[in-house]
Amino acid sequence: MAAAERELVFGASYYPEHWPRERWPEDVRLMKEAGIRLLRVADLAWARLEPEEGRFDFEWLDDFIALASKEGIRFVLATPIEASPVWLRRKHPEVVRTDEFGRIHGDRGYHCHTNAAFAYYVARIVDRMASHYARHPAVVGWQIDNELRAVPCYCKECLLDFRAWLRGAYGTIERLNDAWGTVFWSQSYRSWDEVTLPSADQLTKSVSQALAFNRFCSEATVAHLRRQADIVKKHAPTHIVTHNSLGLYLGLDLYKLGKHLDVMGVDLYPDVDSDNTYTCLNLDLHRSAKREPIWIMEQKNGYFNYSDYNLAIEPGLVRYWTIQDIARGANAVLYYRWRSGRFSWEQNPNGILRHDGTPRRAYEEIRRTTREFAAVGAELAATEVEAPVALLHSFDQIWAFEAQKQYPNFSYRGHLTSYYRELLRMGITPDVVDPCMDLARYAFVVAPSLAMVSEETRRNLEKYVADGGCLVIGARSGMKTWENATIDTPWPGLLSDLAGVEIDEFEVLPDRYSNGVLYNGKSYRVNGWLDLLRTKEAETAGIYQEKFYAGRTAIARNAYGKGTVYYVGAMGSAELFRAILSDVADERGVPKPELPEEVYVTHRVGERMRYTFYLNYAREPRRVRLAKAGVDALTGRTVSGEALIEGLDALIVAAEK
Amino acid sequence: MAAAERELVFGASYYPEHWPRERWPEDVRLMKEAGIRLLRVADLAWARLEPEEGRFDFEWLDDFIALASKEGIRFVLATPIEASPVWLRRKHPEVVRTDEFGRIHGDRGYHCHTNAAFAYYVARIVDRMASHYARHPAVVGWQIDNELRAVPCYCKECLLDFRAWLRGAYGTIERLNDAWGTVFWSQSYRSWDEVTLPSADQLTKSVSQALAFNRFCSEATVAHLRRQADIVKKHAPTHIVTHNSLGLYLGLDLYKLGKHLDVMGVDLYPDVDSDNTYTCLNLDLHRSAKREPIWIMEQKNGYFNYSDYNLAIEPGLVRYWTIQDIARGANAVLYYRWRSGRFSWEQNPNGILRHDGTPRRAYEEIRRTTREFAAVGAELAATEVEAPVALLHSFDQIWAFEAQKQYPNFSYRGHLTSYYRELLRMGITPDVVDPCMDLARYAFVVAPSLAMVSEETRRNLEKYVADGGCLVIGARSGMKTWENATIDTPWPGLLSDLAGVEIDEFEVLPDRYSNGVLYNGKSYRVNGWLDLLRTKEAETAGIYQEKFYAGRTAIARNAYGKGTVYYVGAMGSAELFRAILSDVADERGVPKPELPEEVYVTHRVGERMRYTFYLNYAREPRRVRLAKAGVDALTGRTVSGEALIEGLDALIVAAEK
Amino acid sequence: MAAAERELVFGASYYPEHWPRERWPEDVRLMKEAGIRLLRVADLAWARLEPEEGRFDFEWLDDFIALASKEGIRFVLATPIEASPVWLRRKHPEVVRTDEFGRIHGDRGYHCHTNAAFAYYVARIVDRMASHYARHPAVVGWQIDNELRAVPCYCKECLLDFRAWLRGAYGTIERLNDAWGTVFWSQSYRSWDEVTLPSADQLTKSVSQALAFNRFCSEATVAHLRRQADIVKKHAPTHIVTHNSLGLYLGLDLYKLGKHLDVMGVDLYPDVDSDNTYTCLNLDLHRSAKREPIWIMEQKNGYFNYSDYNLAIEPGLVRYWTIQDIARGANAVLYYRWRSGRFSWEQNPNGILRHDGTPRRAYEEIRRTTREFAAVGAELAATEVEAPVALLHSFDQIWAFEAQKQYPNFSYRGHLTSYYRELLRMGITPDVVDPCMDLARYAFVVAPSLAMVSEETRRNLEKYVADGGCLVIGARSGMKTWENATIDTPWPGLLSDLAGVEIDEFEVLPDRYSNGVLYNGKSYRVNGWLDLLRTKEAETAGIYQEKFYAGRTAIARNAYGKGTVYYVGAMGSAELFRAILSDVADERGVPKPELPEEVYVTHRVGERMRYTFYLNYAREPRRVRLAKAGVDALTGRTVSGEALIEGLDALIVAAEK
Repeated sequence: MAAAERELVFGASYYPEHWPRERWPEDVRLMKEAGIRLLRVADLAWARLEPEEGRFDFEWLDDFIALASKEGIRFVLATPIEASPVWLRRKHPEVVRTDEFGRIHGDRGYHCHTNAAFAYYVARIVDRMASHYARHPAVVGWQIDNELRAVPCYCKECLLDFRAWLRGAYGTIERLNDAWGTVFWSQSYRSWDEVTLPSADQLTKSVSQALAFNRFCSEATVAHLRRQADIVKKHAPTHIVTHNSLGLYLGLDLYKLGKHLDVMGVDLYPDVDSDNTYTCLNLDLHRSAKREPIWIMEQKNGYFNYSDYNLAIEPGLVRYWTIQDIARGANAVLYYRWRSGRFSWEQNPNGILRHDGTPRRAYEEIRRTTREFAAVGAELAATEVEAPVALLHSFDQIWAFEAQKQYPNFSYRGHLTSYYRELLRMGITPDVVDPCMDLARYAFVVAPSLAMVSEETRRNLEKYVADGGCLVIGARSGMKTWENATIDTPWPGLLSDLAGVEIDEFEVLPDRYSNGVLYNGKSYRVNGWLDLLRTKEAETAGIYQEKFYAGRTAIARNAYGKGTVYYVGAMGSAELFRAILSDVADERGVPKPELPEEVYVTHRVGERMRYTFYLNYAREPRRVRLAKAGVDALTGRTVSGEALIEGLDALIVAAEK
Repeated sequence: MAAAERELVFGASYYPEHWPRERWPEDVRLMKEAGIRLLRVADLAWARLEPEEGRFDFEWLDDFIALASKEGIRFVLATPIEASPVWLRRKHPEVVRTDEFGRIHGDRGYHCHTNAAFAYYVARIVDRMASHYARHPAVVGWQIDNELRAVPCYCKECLLDFRAWLRGAYGTIERLNDAWGTVFWSQSYRSWDEVTLPSADQLTKSVSQALAFNRFCSEATVAHLRRQADIVKKHAPTHIVTHNSLGLYLGLDLYKLGKHLDVMGVDLYPDVDSDNTYTCLNLDLHRSAKREPIWIMEQKNGYFNYSDYNLAIEPGLVRYWTIQDIARGANAVLYYRWRSGRFSWEQNPNGILRHDGTPRRAYEEIRRTTREFAAVGAELAATEVEAPVALLHSFDQIWAFEAQKQYPNFSYRGHLTSYYRELLRMGITPDVVDPCMDLARYAFVVAPSLAMVSEETRRNLEKYVADGGCLVIGARSGMKTWENATIDTPWPGLLSDLAGVEIDEFEVLPDRYSNGVLYNGKSYRVNGWLDLLRTKEAETAGIYQEKFYAGRTAIARNAYGKGTVYYVGAMGSAELFRAILSDVADERGVPKPELPEEVYVTHRVGERMRYTFYLNYAREPRRVRLAKAGVDALTGRTVSGEALIEGLDALIVAAEK
Repeated sequence: MAAAERELVFGASYYPEHWPRERWPEDVRLMKEAGIRLLRVADLAWARLEPEEGRFDFEWLDDFIALASKEGIRFVLATPIEASPVWLRRKHPEVVRTDEFGRIHGDRGYHCHTNAAFAYYVARIVDRMASHYARHPAVVGWQIDNELRAVPCYCKECLLDFRAWLRGAYGTIERLNDAWGTVFWSQSYRSWDEVTLPSADQLTKSVSQALAFNRFCSEATVAHLRRQADIVKKHAPTHIVTHNSLGLYLGLDLYKLGKHLDVMGVDLYPDVDSDNTYTCLNLDLHRSAKREPIWIMEQKNGYFNYSDYNLAIEPGLVRYWTIQDIARGANAVLYYRWRSGRFSWEQNPNGILRHDGTPRRAYEEIRRTTREFAAVGAELAATEVEAPVALLHSFDQIWAFEAQKQYPNFSYRGHLTSYYRELLRMGITPDVVDPCMDLARYAFVVAPSLAMVSEETRRNLEKYVADGGCLVIGARSGMKTWENATIDTPWPGLLSDLAGVEIDEFEVLPDRYSNGVLYNGKSYRVNGWLDLLRTKEAETAGIYQEKFYAGRTAIARNAYGKGTVYYVGAMGSAELFRAILSDVADERGVPKPELPEEVYVTHRVGERMRYTFYLNYAREPRRVRLAKAGVDALTGRTVSGEALIEGLDALIVAAEK
């Protein structure tokens, strides 16, 4: 999508099938009044759209779209696959996933994504919907399925598909045996027919097999999405295809998923009392999948349905979340949901309207917000988020780690978040990208843990550094092959030349222990995973201070090609990470605005204008020194010098580039 | 049973089949000496009574009854259904329940209560026993089965029965679809054949389906009891039919169970170091099921078999429990068990005798107690417990809540107990009744949480208040239909007119947060579920003090008909509940005696006499101001003014009305 | 094995099949250099030794053995049964155990040990290996299987075997019914065909049945080992047969296992920051199984693979563990493993070499250690560990306790360890033996908890005491039959005459409560299980101080025959145990050297010499007063008086007897 075609739009999820037809006009009136111009509909409505096998009923949806589109409302249609109709499951019980014990065992969205019968019925309804709505002027896009998960299914079809997938990946059974190290525990396979899923009837499970199965499940789900997307595109090539990702869910490779989407979408349900970090990471991760603006397909505006408690959403918070979404790359914000649900698992007041159809507080707040952005929206939508640095994030690493945590007190996502949080606090917005993406654009790159390193990863990182880049590698890196086996050369293996170090040993400290690291004259308490480095070409930048390895290198700095590599062998200290990242930012000329606690800053940059978002997540006012004078994009007032931002409020400064 | 026929009796559980015949005479001698006059026998003895299919052996039981009845001992026979014989389970493995994965999966008492084969064998042995003992002069009653649970069985027969039950409940599949909201997540059924049990192979489970299944299971178990009771009554219409309820077990609707019993029975196993509240609640709940005196079928007198630890039962405690049982409505106290068990799961010293047949300390204490009550027993048995107020308690609410807790930090029973405990401390004994029972007799009624409200409930409450009653409604009320779906009118829905309020929103605070409520000039810390009220006809009686909703109504008071309704939107403060209940008691003229810590008071009232029980649960003496002078019912001494009650002791003051 | 044939040897686990042949010579060179002279090979290599059904390939192993034996290395061959090949499991899925739900459900080593097909394939490969290597001069021994567990398998074959086993144990079904008390809960069996395994489809499980099943599983696994051992012995009668026990694993009766081994073996994986007690107990337990020197088949020298964290193994610790092994009876120490594993579950640096084939720190430490022991090894190997006292330990008690814990805050092993730890601290090394072993040699015997007492146990203990022995019995003793049912005579039943007491009652206190015991003028806080004793012939040696039973006997002392019995009814106080054991040691003339904190002492005694091991587990130096002057066995230096031992160091004083 070219920047010029973009727009900033506010919308909501709506379930016309849940409410009486007589109510529809009043809902549309209230939507229009609140600035809701885009509705997502039809997710979860399969049983209404195909009430009996092969009999399709689009009339109710046609009627609602006709009614609403007259008032200028446009539509993203969801393919209604997540909740299959009862008749299908009665006829084909096997469309529900089979668990590791061979039992059909359901859960939300737990269909088998390789099942041929399921694929047939999915294709048919998507084809019928897409052909029916392809030329409807009010339909602008499609959400494929809903909050897809990489379902671990252990049915016979998955077994056969898994074998075929392995054959594709490894070519010969000997290569699979070598890669997985099946010589260990006598697990060698003589033929493809002997390979199984990691089911419960195995004597033991291999961690390489488990990783392969994760990859297979993720790809099967991406293929399931792609089959639907292809059908939609065949009928409606100009419609925008998106998906609503589950967010920081781990099972599905978002980077691969994104390749089959026009726009990346995500669902956001921040906790009221949460540290804001995960919400920002969620936005940055999804924006980075395509490195383009995203759509928030479900923005929480009421209570979450699956929570241990629900704090009241304070006045201002829905607006704050909305502006933060935009600040980090959203061009569309669809609230979940229009009217609060009444049935089964979703009965909390999660709507802009109450269960009884009257507006909740959020209604007024959303109306205010949509109006505030009315003037600046189109121009904002054409901008891109400025991300001068990259944080490397890999789903394969997550799966390898989940297949064998080894140490529960090391968490891949936790380690990554420790670095991410310090970048946020310095006002530096990173892209969160796969290690194989092109990195040339970034002033520096942080790779918190790259336990498995592929040849492709190595080449990409070496090229980036050799050409003058700066790479920060975190602890527990370079130990494993791409198949989750340990390498037979000195650690960090393929990263060793880059980093100019070898790792002689490591130790893993539980929370009750720690060691000290001396870096630039200051001491930091570290624990968790600690790599003991031996420098080759690198120089020592930090040392351990205690135990028998006091004086050994904890942090090394290496010149490589035109660039620089840091290996940070220790973890567990936010302060240490902050100090290192701050020094690297200075070295690479990345600005670090001074920010009060809980104030976030991002930039969206267009051809002519630069929009700086100051977001105050604190509940009290904060005083901010503006980087540049400009115009308050929401009010048009001129601003400069220092500005006071109210609690849960934002200031967007528009300035010429 | 008319009051005149009643008696106060002490008894025990005895297993003659566990001990050599030669020992029987010595046991009977010791029983007689201790005042044990009623034995429950034959529970768990199916394999002895029908050692092979169709061959019955009552001889051993006849012999024992003959021996003991010569010494004046009478019998309650248990139908021996809980533990089916091995031959039956080998022939019909399906009599054991099937779990949600379709596996036969046993647990104590886990038979399928709808299975036809099981019902056949149950009916046959009950019929044979009942016809055999119907005219035996020493047999006075029957305990149907043992500690029944509403077993969640997922077998095919249960599936078919469930469908038939649903058809009976809803009439048409459309009405079921509407009531459960199956439009949500595409779960609509086209015919009864498509409906399933909430088994694991479902894609997801509906919370309305789960509630329906709970109701079905409870009714199936009540029917299982009723079939047995009917057979007994056919043969022995004058025998008393009872059951030993598991106590505060949640799965079975005791109010419905009670309809098929002559006398409600319960098993009581208080912890030595427990707050006494649950024991009292247990007694009050069971007494309220029929609003008549009850039988304690198993009163703990030794160690519990399924505990993480067992504190020694201090001298005096068995007697204390016994008197407390009587104080709250027991006319029979049967200790569990006569001699300590030797086998399998029950090997703790749980008997009045040791494993070796010698008396434990409890023996002497029981002998003392039975003698103390010898004189006053008959008169006491003809009295009723005075319960001036009612606490509403609903099994349907529990099941709805279990099907979807929504917030684990809200507990239905916990919330109810918070109110109950404050009534206890004020010396007010409530009946604990279903919201649909007649309430006219009560000075005031407390309804801690009525999340689901049926039309029948609404009518009953409105009639009670309109006629001059006083109703206190607690938080989280009036939100749901009787099918566990959220209503589409303003909360608290059917209670809105009664309470004169609407609920705009709520929040649910975890333990680490709280808010303040100002009530009658005093501030209280509240948390958990907090309803934010908007008064209509009602006046504000308490307000929130913090956060953005400071000043909003937390407690409202409404005049309705000739009566009054309080809506208490907050929870989490025992002090607040105490203050409100105290004010309401004053307003309604319910006496609140001043009581030292850990002293409980109840009244049993007959035609002529009033017995006031003062029970000191403290381990130290307490001084009590007597409401009225009278006679110590156990010693015959005159008492008045202030009395000193020893630790773990009681004083029963008998006075003319 | 006569003492004269013994030697002290250091070795390692090696997997030649995991590494390229070209690497083998370098590995052998490094081994020789480090003093590694014994390799365990072929465990887990079934798929390499029999790559297809019936086709055997010993060539690779022959080649490696040829290469290494040229350099003086000898071999223990493992029968490679733990990890069956994939082809066998595809052909016979039932060789993997069946779980209690009837599902084939694998886990490491989880084969069915009664399965006939499995037994056939096991026998064939063991036979082929044994005949192939029986006359190989470099092969000195065999490890049967690997870390055997008593697998609880619920397959049909196990069911039939279990019934046959029960018939063998009980003779008639009536005797089984009596022993298990099946009259309880109507579980009586009419014939053997009605008996089942304790599978999930039972209505309930009997604790006596569960104990019987544990016994059956343990015996089935011992028989599985025995079948293999018999085949090996048939071919190679002079080879040493051993096994590598899982250590403090509970499921398998080590005493019975030991009967089929020439040398007891064990695997040792101490935690770096653990209390050293369990490691010592492990060594003492395994040494006691045959009361002869043992082999450490796997001595941790690197990181454990299944840990929540791994502290760095400090310099000196591998050597410390090695000397401690020898001090407590090891004549062989094989490190696990030679080179760190690369695949699947074992990827931590667990080798003497790194993954990359270079030496880790442990390499140097091991080289030093093997050299230090070069001179004294042969003489040391001919000695025996001096154990003047016995601690009674019974696997049957563990299984009975696991079948019915009754109180989770009582732990059989924990209670036993409380006594054991105090013996350690006093420098007294116990044998840890079954209650039925001959006890005449011991100065005193401690029996921490003998809940079940068989006639055989009683006779053995009475004989020991009557002949002049001294027995200390701990709480919770004498309550049960050998079938896990409670006795019907006064507690402690068969121990009552010995101890001269009866137990009137007990209480079990959770951690938050305690009572006091007054013993020899000092007061101790006790909790957990407390027996209230009534003395018969015994005299009171300690009394309770609080609650209603203050003044009652907690500890009794009885004269019996020529000996003495203590019954210690309380637990929960290390100080109390220490005081009692100290008094008993004095009374029996057992020396109690004064030892600094964390210093351990043991003695190995030969025909002529006495070696006293002082081991300093502290990280700092400790000063020790030597019992006797002598020669430092590792350096040849004369030592006497007081010696300073460095942190994690040892001093072995050799002196003439």
